[in-house]
Amino acid sequence: MTVSDFRPVSESDEPPPFYRAVGGEVDVFRAAARRGSPILLKGPTGCGKTRFVEAMAYELGRELITVAGHEDMTSADLVGRFLLKGGETVWVDGPLTRAVREGAICYLDEIVEARQDTTVVIHPLADHRRELPIDRLGTTLAAAPGFQLVISYNPGYQSILKNLKESTRQRFVAISLDFPAPAVETEVVAREAGIDAATAESLVVLGNAIRNLDGSALNEVASTRMLILAGGLVAEGLPLRAAVQAAVVEVLSDDPEVVRGLGELVDAVLPRQ
Amino acid sequence: MTVSDFRPVSESDEPPPFYRAVGGEVDVFRAAARRGSPILLKGPTGCGKTRFVEAMAYELGRELITVAGHEDMTSADLVGRFLLKGGETVWVDGPLTRAVREGAICYLDEIVEARQDTTVVIHPLADHRRELPIDRLGTTLAAAPGFQLVISYNPGYQSILKNLKESTRQRFVAISLDFPAPAVETEVVAREAGIDAATAESLVVLGNAIRNLDGSALNEVASTRMLILAGGLVAEGLPLRAAVQAAVVEVLSDDPEVVRGLGELVDAVLPRQ
Amino acid sequence: MTVSDFRPVSESDEPPPFYRAVGGEVDVFRAAARRGSPILLKGPTGCGKTRFVEAMAYELGRELITVAGHEDMTSADLVGRFLLKGGETVWVDGPLTRAVREGAICYLDEIVEARQDTTVVIHPLADHRRELPIDRLGTTLAAAPGFQLVISYNPGYQSILKNLKESTRQRFVAISLDFPAPAVETEVVAREAGIDAATAESLVVLGNAIRNLDGSALNEVASTRMLILAGGLVAEGLPLRAAVQAAVVEVLSDDPEVVRGLGELVDAVLPRQ
Amino acid sequence: MTVSDFRPVSESDEPPPFYRAVGGEVDVFRAAARRGSPILLKGPTGCGKTRFVEAMAYELGRELITVAGHEDMTSADLVGRFLLKGGETVWVDGPLTRAVREGAICYLDEIVEARQDTTVVIHPLADHRRELPIDRLGTTLAAAPGFQLVISYNPGYQSILKNLKESTRQRFVAISLDFPAPAVETEVVAREAGIDAATAESLVVLGNAIRNLDGSALNEVASTRMLILAGGLVAEGLPLRAAVQAAVVEVLSDDPEVVRGLGELVDAVLPRQ
Amino acid sequence: MTVSDFRPVSESDEPPPFYRAVGGEVDVFRAAARRGSPILLKGPTGCGKTRFVEAMAYELGRELITVAGHEDMTSADLVGRFLLKGGETVWVDGPLTRAVREGAICYLDEIVEARQDTTVVIHPLADHRRELPIDRLGTTLAAAPGFQLVISYNPGYQSILKNLKESTRQRFVAISLDFPAPAVETEVVAREAGIDAATAESLVVLGNAIRNLDGSALNEVASTRMLILAGGLVAEGLPLRAAVQAAVVEVLSDDPEVVRGLGELVDAVLPRQ
Amino acid sequence: MTVSDFRPVSESDEPPPFYRAVGGEVDVFRAAARRGSPILLKGPTGCGKTRFVEAMAYELGRELITVAGHEDMTSADLVGRFLLKGGETVWVDGPLTRAVREGAICYLDEIVEARQDTTVVIHPLADHRRELPIDRLGTTLAAAPGFQLVISYNPGYQSILKNLKESTRQRFVAISLDFPAPAVETEVVAREAGIDAATAESLVVLGNAIRNLDGSALNEVASTRMLILAGGLVAEGLPLRAAVQAAVVEVLSDDPEVVRGLGELVDAVLPRQ
Repeated sequence: MTVSDFRPVSESDEPPPFYRAVGGEVDVFRAAARRGSPILLKGPTGCGKTRFVEAMAYELGRELITVAGHEDMTSADLVGRFLLKGGETVWVDGPLTRAVREGAICYLDEIVEARQDTTVVIHPLADHRRELPIDRLGTTLAAAPGFQLVISYNPGYQSILKNLKESTRQRFVAISLDFPAPAVETEVVAREAGIDAATAESLVVLGNAIRNLDGSALNEVASTRMLILAGGLVAEGLPLRAAVQAAVVEVLSDDPEVVRGLGELVDAVLPRQ
Repeated sequence: MTVSDFRPVSESDEPPPFYRAVGGEVDVFRAAARRGSPILLKGPTGCGKTRFVEAMAYELGRELITVAGHEDMTSADLVGRFLLKGGETVWVDGPLTRAVREGAICYLDEIVEARQDTTVVIHPLADHRRELPIDRLGTTLAAAPGFQLVISYNPGYQSILKNLKESTRQRFVAISLDFPAPAVETEVVAREAGIDAATAESLVVLGNAIRNLDGSALNEVASTRMLILAGGLVAEGLPLRAAVQAAVVEVLSDDPEVVRGLGELVDAVLPRQ
Repeated sequence: MTVSDFRPVSESDEPPPFYRAVGGEVDVFRAAARRGSPILLKGPTGCGKTRFVEAMAYELGRELITVAGHEDMTSADLVGRFLLKGGETVWVDGPLTRAVREGAICYLDEIVEARQDTTVVIHPLADHRRELPIDRLGTTLAAAPGFQLVISYNPGYQSILKNLKESTRQRFVAISLDFPAPAVETEVVAREAGIDAATAESLVVLGNAIRNLDGSALNEVASTRMLILAGGLVAEGLPLRAAVQAAVVEVLSDDPEVVRGLGELVDAVLPRQ
Repeated sequence: MTVSDFRPVSESDEPPPFYRAVGGEVDVFRAAARRGSPILLKGPTGCGKTRFVEAMAYELGRELITVAGHEDMTSADLVGRFLLKGGETVWVDGPLTRAVREGAICYLDEIVEARQDTTVVIHPLADHRRELPIDRLGTTLAAAPGFQLVISYNPGYQSILKNLKESTRQRFVAISLDFPAPAVETEVVAREAGIDAATAESLVVLGNAIRNLDGSALNEVASTRMLILAGGLVAEGLPLRAAVQAAVVEVLSDDPEVVRGLGELVDAVLPRQ
Repeated sequence: MTVSDFRPVSESDEPPPFYRAVGGEVDVFRAAARRGSPILLKGPTGCGKTRFVEAMAYELGRELITVAGHEDMTSADLVGRFLLKGGETVWVDGPLTRAVREGAICYLDEIVEARQDTTVVIHPLADHRRELPIDRLGTTLAAAPGFQLVISYNPGYQSILKNLKESTRQRFVAISLDFPAPAVETEVVAREAGIDAATAESLVVLGNAIRNLDGSALNEVASTRMLILAGGLVAEGLPLRAAVQAAVVEVLSDDPEVVRGLGELVDAVLPRQ
Repeated sequence: MTVSDFRPVSESDEPPPFYRAVGGEVDVFRAAARRGSPILLKGPTGCGKTRFVEAMAYELGRELITVAGHEDMTSADLVGRFLLKGGETVWVDGPLTRAVREGAICYLDEIVEARQDTTVVIHPLADHRRELPIDRLGTTLAAAPGFQLVISYNPGYQSILKNLKESTRQRFVAISLDFPAPAVETEVVAREAGIDAATAESLVVLGNAIRNLDGSALNEVASTRMLILAGGLVAEGLPLRAAVQAAVVEVLSDDPEVVRGLGELVDAVLPRQ
């Protein structure tokens, strides 16, 4: 389990997270946050789900606690456990418990990967009860005002074996995200990679050309994140073609045929240098 | 495992839980409770099983202890375990043991998800013996008067692998619940979401339209809980159409085709605003 | 693992367990008990296996220790284990060891569900050796006179994966039980549920009507235990039809078609009230 | 794991174990024992493998240590482990280690059921090295003179998944046992069950009639052990027909058709009483 | 998990690692290292991935920490764990944490073999956050300047079950390596094995002949590493033909037919001695 | 895991191990040992792999440490672990670590059976690094001069699931062993079993007759080890035919048809006595 703290506004000198809305997602997030209803973010890898949550946390002035789900994660990883410290048994809050106590936004990324007890543990937090029972402490914690549950997953990955239980899913308000429109994505890539607008536009044109391929040979299409990585290599002096090969083509596939076909597409789409 | 305490009447200032009976379920619950026979609640997700138990606990004046089952739950999670506290080994009652001692209602939600030893541990509690053997303490606990076992499950989810053993199931009196009639559901949605009756009725009409679909593409139909969530977003100022999209359409499916089809149904059923 | 103690005759004021023999089972049990040969009880859920063992224990004047098998049960659950108590490591006898020491009847209910080491541990107890090796203590315990091993299982449940090993099974004398004849079952239901003979007879007629169905849609037929549960609801004031619906029909199936079919059968068989 | 000690001759007043040789098994056992070559006993359930080893141990004047294999048995169960006793960590020899130290016969019954590390641990004991490395103690134990390894298994049970590794098997001298000839088996049954020769002969005739059935519906044929059990019930006063039903017919099958067919065979073979 | 330290330049008298570039891999590595973007190395077994990383670490003057992935590796193996030392519980950094603290290159070899939580733990290190949350310490570590993540895998091995998650993969810049051109490979083999150029060239010619086989019967082609091993045996005095048999032919296959066919190819390709 | 120490020459009065070379295996072993290249021994069960390694260790004057792989073996079994001794936590070297420290030959028998982390742990020992990282100690051990890694496996057993990873295998020099030629095998059998040359020759003729059978019904052919075992029983006075039945025929198969067929072959091949 990985946890990362996003310092709230007041304690940070960092600039606000850079995020460009792609639809009505901001309005739905605000309404659900006012209501305290939990939020389910759906969307492909690298489309900006994490950035969106960071931006909303900044706007709402709440701390953000992020947890990345994986198949070995258990409810104790979320709620906390007793640890032996210097001969004493000490209770250490997990990230979810910390968010419940402090009224923070708890963002459970790809929670569907985790073991089932981790999703069940959020049930009483995700309905009218808004409370977290901590079995090991024999106590039940009422969520502080401001506590907001956000979970995300990528519908393209879901298998029959790994899916949110319906009884979990129906407790959430769902927001579906996708890659931004070209103008927005160009702005994002230029800014994040530190490159000029023309190069960024070339990358976005290429990204959309790949997204429009009949994707049967690709597990995933080119994400905004990949375009930013390619732009970053250009910013470090690598030629555009070599940067795209390393950050896009070789990442999208290991199959020599597919790699060659993608290379030809790149040659056709990118401007001659 | 999650445990949440429902404070008994005498210790609480909260109003009684809001519940509207949909059939003879109250009479059967009362008779079984007088007899001390354990109760099995059957019904779809979000139809109000938890609310029903809360209301009956309130009427009977008994404490309610709720436990949500999951596939990693073991009998120790129900019965209790020894914990190390300050160098001492201390026994900590599990929620089932606490209910047995205190004569509370123990509500095991979706118990069929749990490991088999959790269902076997309730056998002597669920027949004429009414006792809980606690192996680790080398003792057997007679259930206090008022102890009532209630378990629930959703027949629509049951697989060949996860099912109550017949030898467990035959110890229970079964009550089958379903979504309430439109007038009742409208009242419930309006009250719980805090919206006017007309909007609530629109949501209930929509909910029944979805329930009447040939459901092959949907894992689950629109529950009362989802309609209340949608109503809540409206109460926070979101337009009805956007609220339904977030709380109903995007929750019911990830398939773009299904999402679009549901959207068209919503457009046809909801009143123009 | 669940353990429940049946107090022996001398220490109890309770009346003897109510049991009506349905065949030659009592003679075989007595002979095997005199010989010390272990006994295997076969029969459907709720036909009275537990009651039969309780009655025989009462007749023989021996303590009865019951253990319900489940798929997480290990040999340590039967034999015992070291527990940490107040800094000291203390050996705690399991129920089987206690029965061996005290010359009690040890009844292992549905032992076939348990892990294989639990069945192997009874091998030296189940042949001419009559001894229990306790590996962890480095000792071997000779069974006290009066020790009697009884195991049960339901042949209808056995899968290819869960079955007694032949080398276990061949150490036992087998007794096959079934539901009692109508007159006996009527007496049992009336007495256990506390209802009049006419109502009990109606329930038994219904039970046999269900048992005579071509059972392909039912996992299990109506057991004596279910009829007693239905009778108990009647004794608490519920109408007979509603009691049967809750304790028989809704318990036997979740399939709406089957539930409706059973309901029609009930309407045809039960007397008009 | 189960361990039982057979007291060596000098310490016991018990009569020598009753065993009747059925072939050349005694000569092969003696030669292998003189050589120190490990022995593999093959044969069906209940044909007398354990008795044979008991008799050979008696004849050779060596202690017999028996271990019954099961699927949860590990090498630590055989070799030993550290246990916490009164705050001290104490090494406790497993049964194999004890046999190696004391020069006893170690009989591993159905060892093929155990986990693979248990069979690998006997490799250096089963070839020219005759030594037991004890990893946890960082030592290697040379087998005392007289140490003899005997393992058994039932070829009829072996699946593709559970089989002795060839590299294990080829270290052993194999002895194949089967049920004894009628005259010998009659003597064994009469003596062990404590019944007259005529009744014993009836049981043996019945046993052979069942063994000659085309066995497709039976997992196992009637063993000598089963005939002794039936005889024992007769010795306790049960009629022969009822004793055979309990100890043979109901043990051999749960299938009503097979049980009825076996019953007809019994009626045809047993003498009228 | 295996960890090996490559001493940085300043602390070592060893000559720089011998590496010959085969394409643009050095430029991409330099750009990604300047940017801090994580690197994914793809290529067949024994083509020089480890050497390449050693050479780049030397050139960049950074410490190299190598970890070999395997299917039992967990995130604790990477991040660290509490160990009991002399009664005290002491935290011991894992290799990844050490690299994060010290600004080293962390090379995770065949990370795809490891359990999923090990790949999830690197997510926040592999995007704009560059931080390592350490759950057990309740802290988040910012990566020191110079920290560089490199992972490798062999696309030829990937199964449907073991693959990098797309959400992991898209965070990396990918570099694809292959066997070097003949002249370069001859130089490498001669130098590493300590043999003359002519013998090295014979080995390289043979290696390419095997690589050009229709490889259906071989799991893997002859790697540079194998040619060096063969050369080493020659340097120790073994005839070339025998060295190739031991280091190439018998290593590539166990199938007698394939071994014979490869032997004939060797006879045809190698010069007569 | 089993470990056995072969005392080096200087500390032992035992005669040198008896081994007859069957091909060029001694030259390859010597060259690889001079070079320090790890060695992979391939060959059928009981063909003399262990004896070969014992003989080479004797010739090279190095200690031999043997470890038998099994499916529960982990890297800690090889490398070492912390053990609690008298309240203190003490590190105990595993056999591989001991060999690395002392410059011994470490022979990992059937290593392919072990868990994958055990093979990965030897990677840095099996290439140019020749070092063993010990994660738990936070140290890396350089192999002492003379350290030699030898692993073995039986190609006939390998399944698709259990195979050396290519990235492991390509680090080794492979030596393929088989049963010796008749004259050599006769000498070996006569000497090891302590029988005359004529009887030994009869056994070898029989062994080769079995090896020449179309082996579809046999999992393995008759090994030299089996012939020695049979010879040993003859040396203890058992007739040759009975000895062959026990040590060869009954060991090679449990199938009555196959056993009878092998018996007929034995009758035809062995001389009349």
